[in-house]
Amino acid sequence: MHLSPYMKVGIQGEVGSFSHEAATRMLPGCTVVPCMRSAEVFDKLDRRLVAAAVIPIENSLAGSVAEHFDLLLSRGVFIQAEFPLRIVHNLIGTPGVKFSDVRRVYSHPVALDQCRDFFRRHPKIEPVAFYDTAGSVKHVIENQQRDAAGIAGKQAARVYRGTILEAGVEDDKRNFTRFFLIRRGRRVLAGANKTSLAFSVKNVPGALFKALSVFALRDISLSKIESRPVRGRPWEYIFYVDILRGDDEAARNALRHLGEVADLVKLLGIYKAGIER
Amino acid sequence: MHLSPYMKVGIQGEVGSFSHEAATRMLPGCTVVPCMRSAEVFDKLDRRLVAAAVIPIENSLAGSVAEHFDLLLSRGVFIQAEFPLRIVHNLIGTPGVKFSDVRRVYSHPVALDQCRDFFRRHPKIEPVAFYDTAGSVKHVIENQQRDAAGIAGKQAARVYRGTILEAGVEDDKRNFTRFFLIRRGRRVLAGANKTSLAFSVKNVPGALFKALSVFALRDISLSKIESRPVRGRPWEYIFYVDILRGDDEAARNALRHLGEVADLVKLLGIYKAGIER
Repeated sequence: MHLSPYMKVGIQGEVGSFSHEAATRMLPGCTVVPCMRSAEVFDKLDRRLVAAAVIPIENSLAGSVAEHFDLLLSRGVFIQAEFPLRIVHNLIGTPGVKFSDVRRVYSHPVALDQCRDFFRRHPKIEPVAFYDTAGSVKHVIENQQRDAAGIAGKQAARVYRGTILEAGVEDDKRNFTRFFLIRRGRRVLAGANKTSLAFSVKNVPGALFKALSVFALRDISLSKIESRPVRGRPWEYIFYVDILRGDDEAARNALRHLGEVADLVKLLGIYKAGIER
Repeated sequence: MHLSPYMKVGIQGEVGSFSHEAATRMLPGCTVVPCMRSAEVFDKLDRRLVAAAVIPIENSLAGSVAEHFDLLLSRGVFIQAEFPLRIVHNLIGTPGVKFSDVRRVYSHPVALDQCRDFFRRHPKIEPVAFYDTAGSVKHVIENQQRDAAGIAGKQAARVYRGTILEAGVEDDKRNFTRFFLIRRGRRVLAGANKTSLAFSVKNVPGALFKALSVFALRDISLSKIESRPVRGRPWEYIFYVDILRGDDEAARNALRHLGEVADLVKLLGIYKAGIER
């Protein structure tokens, strides 16, 4: 991927988070730079303090991360790869602690809710809400707690040197988060077969229909469409679309044609479709 | 709205949450029934344990609540009204506590992040992540803390008898969450001018285009479109669409026409468009 090892990669959230796990899977050997806020990740990329960033864009159960779509639209970045990460929750404790010692389990409420069967099987263990998944593991291990554990991705166990007491405690195995690897400047890698773009059209009936005709007329399939209201301008929308084509003639013609019928078109990236496994 | 006062209304989350606030605005005098999980809200509606439910469906900054779209599709409910609630964050403390006493402020990380200017203006106050906005106020007041406060909607101050030390501490005033009032069985109230529906089409190029033609050919405007992958069936999608028409002839013709070209069509509700203020 033309990326040197040890390169700096910005992520939003704690070290040990699922974003960290996705970054490590996409760029083995990279050094993650954790940021409190998503805008900070994009700022660091702008100011060349990181070479790339890895951001979650949608989860199969929770939906799109709207803020990240808005940042892709407003900032000068380009999507270079996508990666669908299977969200696996693990029960992680202080080294030396046995499963039978655990009485309380900390994690983010969304994660606890995705592990209800586990708590039903173990009624003596109490779930306790915590602000973050990886943060719950950090908390348990830093305080050397012997009767508590956290629920998080396996990256949290690695980073905070915790022991995985039980792996895969989530109820639904079809829980995926789709991550984008973004960089400054346009670059299309070999094998790219998917394109993400944003566009807006005039607020008249049939305008979206006309815009989508540029793909339908060329037999180009869409794999995603989503409208987002434009902030501060009621009744105006931005559409986010993924098409199943790379940088070929039909796609280039469709984008040129879209430029004629839309008010604004922004190419967000051309990359190889990731495969869920 | 043909709803008696004191009627029971299911919400997901704590008493004092923004869902509680929306329920109170839509149905003054109602009794909210808090549920841990969203599926529980729909279960209670099914089993007639509540007469209605109020659920958030999308936030202008955070995007759609995918789980709620999926539940609207799979359950026998009908949308009867929508309400866009302005999300106003307030600093809420134990009665008798002064603003100058506050050293720590608890809230959900998303709420803390939406109040960054407040923390910049008050560098002596430390933000502390908590699992829930209303829950942070409950925690501070139940423990009669004198050096801490929570950030939540004003409903939390009412419910837990807290004092609002500063109102409107959020950075962005254009923060709205759109709520639906849902009930069992189809009912269309007077003045309904908006329709929500879900449909799926065969996975062939141009299928979505053909489906949208049923609206474009009748000059019917869309105010939302969103695709969602069908769980467990890669490359199949459900589309969620809002059209700016009530139960009139053109809309009925368009829906009948959509039934011819789509594999599945589900009418989710016909209701009066809410106005942001």
